[in-house]
Amino acid sequence: MTYSFVSHLYCPKCTKTYNLESTHQLCTCGSPLLVKYNLHLLTQELKPSDLKGRRNDLWRYHELLPIKKEKNIVSMGEGMTPLLPMDRIGKQMGIKQLFMKDEGIIPTGTFKARGAAVGVSKAKELGVKQLAMPTNGNAGAAWSLYATRAGICATIVMPMDAPKITRNECAVAGGNLYLVDGLISDAGRIVAGLVQSSDIYDASTLKEPYRIEGKKTMGLEIAEQFNWEAPDVILYPTGGGVGLIGIYKAWKELQELGWVHKEKMPRLVAVQAEGCAPIVRAWEEGKRESEFWPDSQTIAFGINVPKALGDFLVLEALYETNGCAVSIDDREIVAEQKIIAEKEGTFICPEGASAFVAARKLRKQGWIKDNERVVVLNTGAGIKYPNTVNVEVPILQKGDSIPIRTNI
Amino acid sequence: MTYSFVSHLYCPKCTKTYNLESTHQLCTCGSPLLVKYNLHLLTQELKPSDLKGRRNDLWRYHELLPIKKEKNIVSMGEGMTPLLPMDRIGKQMGIKQLFMKDEGIIPTGTFKARGAAVGVSKAKELGVKQLAMPTNGNAGAAWSLYATRAGICATIVMPMDAPKITRNECAVAGGNLYLVDGLISDAGRIVAGLVQSSDIYDASTLKEPYRIEGKKTMGLEIAEQFNWEAPDVILYPTGGGVGLIGIYKAWKELQELGWVHKEKMPRLVAVQAEGCAPIVRAWEEGKRESEFWPDSQTIAFGINVPKALGDFLVLEALYETNGCAVSIDDREIVAEQKIIAEKEGTFICPEGASAFVAARKLRKQGWIKDNERVVVLNTGAGIKYPNTVNVEVPILQKGDSIPIRTNI
Repeated sequence: MTYSFVSHLYCPKCTKTYNLESTHQLCTCGSPLLVKYNLHLLTQELKPSDLKGRRNDLWRYHELLPIKKEKNIVSMGEGMTPLLPMDRIGKQMGIKQLFMKDEGIIPTGTFKARGAAVGVSKAKELGVKQLAMPTNGNAGAAWSLYATRAGICATIVMPMDAPKITRNECAVAGGNLYLVDGLISDAGRIVAGLVQSSDIYDASTLKEPYRIEGKKTMGLEIAEQFNWEAPDVILYPTGGGVGLIGIYKAWKELQELGWVHKEKMPRLVAVQAEGCAPIVRAWEEGKRESEFWPDSQTIAFGINVPKALGDFLVLEALYETNGCAVSIDDREIVAEQKIIAEKEGTFICPEGASAFVAARKLRKQGWIKDNERVVVLNTGAGIKYPNTVNVEVPILQKGDSIPIRTNI
Repeated sequence: MTYSFVSHLYCPKCTKTYNLESTHQLCTCGSPLLVKYNLHLLTQELKPSDLKGRRNDLWRYHELLPIKKEKNIVSMGEGMTPLLPMDRIGKQMGIKQLFMKDEGIIPTGTFKARGAAVGVSKAKELGVKQLAMPTNGNAGAAWSLYATRAGICATIVMPMDAPKITRNECAVAGGNLYLVDGLISDAGRIVAGLVQSSDIYDASTLKEPYRIEGKKTMGLEIAEQFNWEAPDVILYPTGGGVGLIGIYKAWKELQELGWVHKEKMPRLVAVQAEGCAPIVRAWEEGKRESEFWPDSQTIAFGINVPKALGDFLVLEALYETNGCAVSIDDREIVAEQKIIAEKEGTFICPEGASAFVAARKLRKQGWIKDNERVVVLNTGAGIKYPNTVNVEVPILQKGDSIPIRTNI
């Protein structure tokens, strides 16, 4: 049995194709490259029920992933994250079927582990010895740790303001870590300079074609967890947008395989912060590409991406699925994070909270209709953002007692 | 089909039994209570292969858990954590088959989620409205969040020195959180005072009989993940020791069911810090109970438990399995945490690191033999302990470049 049904790389802009035998970065036309599979062959050899009893991580979908030999897989048990019913908060919002795909329950505590696992595994298969990337923190942490597990040397550049925990993750993994007094776009320019003057593999978002395949597995899992029935709406906190592109790609492939209905595609929603909403602005103006968002700022650090390389793919996914784009105020994000914890017992990240605010708004506006099934992507664990919660706690001395009435 | 094969509670000291219909805390003799199942009935109705394709969390073992009705389950997708091969570090240690059960990949980022999920679910089934407990941080965080999801009000008392992230988790969940200027034993006395003068459920370690059943699932999973073959050694960082008691109980039940060989029991190893090693001292002296360890101190905060209520059960498990107990210096713990990250790409907690140091020592001493299969329990994610990693990172300005030679 063939382990992977991967076929080749292609450019979604100029349609040029590339082989899989050597490393590729962007297309000569400047566009990111995407991975194509032999789906017509796969559909004859695999059916959804064959997945039952398979390993309990994203590698259960190995036929739809680009790694050709199982021995090249670099894994820490990533994927098959919980899809949790959020009944209390759903009732409050007027959404009867509200679910959270919880990407906090994954190595490194964020969904970045998916892209890193598949991206690093493919880099290993291609013989890469060194890679470099800019990051807002979480992706760098994930790529550092997975690169170490693969025996690849990683150079990571992140803004000084990125969450401190992600610094520690990079450092403990033994990678080359640099901070930059600027934004992820500044880090990107530094990495671009490094890879231009060396043979270091550029693992920047969408400059290598494989992390998107890792992110795609979120879509595959949502489909399988709903028994191959599409939810009506999926809301996704959007920085670089790779997860949204990946979920869209997953659904297109599943439709081509005939595993899901051809008529029903989930409406995809890109959620951004008001302080950094280039995709939202482009969508509102009906444009196919976004413009650089100057002086971007938001507490949801992972979605502080002023210009995404894959913006045109994100926008295409929104238009093609009859989705939309929404921007959220930081104060609403922080408030929602607390509401979700107090109602549902789940401590989610600010990026995830932004998507819950978006669900709330879209239901109020009627864009999300009665009885629709809605999935919110929580992209990471709240414990990675300790400073978003302000705590004032009473301090007792040894032998003190707690007044009973405070507990009633 | 019966959802749970739970039968009754019994006292392992005086053998008194209790029903399951009302809440129980300790036995009248002062001992913790344990849960008994109708295993002779279950063995006729369920076989290991029936588990395939079941839900991908600890509730796949619902027949061996004490919750009678599925509707009472309070879940955030906990369990079925990865069992990772640790080949590089194993080679370095001379352990050819070294595995890590990674309890960092679970809601709230530590194995405490297991005890909380099962303990809170059973509390909900019993109609509990309020609970209280002392904690070193992680258990309180887990119980706060699960209690919130169950609609139960939680009062948590933790030492001021407990990891700050766990404070935030308790606070965001909306529970009643108190800090105490002292140790977990001081917090315990405050909680004892509260529950004595009210009808609040005492959820202190082993003062309610059900969290151990949650921890037991680590043993069930290890057995299933090894296809029902026992590993030779399991090393477990031991504070209250509930996980070790649980793993031992799991194996005894699996043997009674006939799912694992009756002859082979994994040798269990209790790992403690040199600054708090009451179990190790008791084991070295061949005693059945431990003594309070004064002025305890260790960087591995989760195992800073000067006197465990279930010490006699931990020691019984060590004696019965031909296991042992080892104490580790804090400096070795911090060094090991970094070695594990740099070799394997996994960022583990200090408690988990202590168990790796123990494996290293026991192999050197010949206690772990050539070709033995060894499992280390990593009880939590490194990201919950950001201060154990010290980072000095070069800072770049916008437009700076990275000297190539640092990457070669």
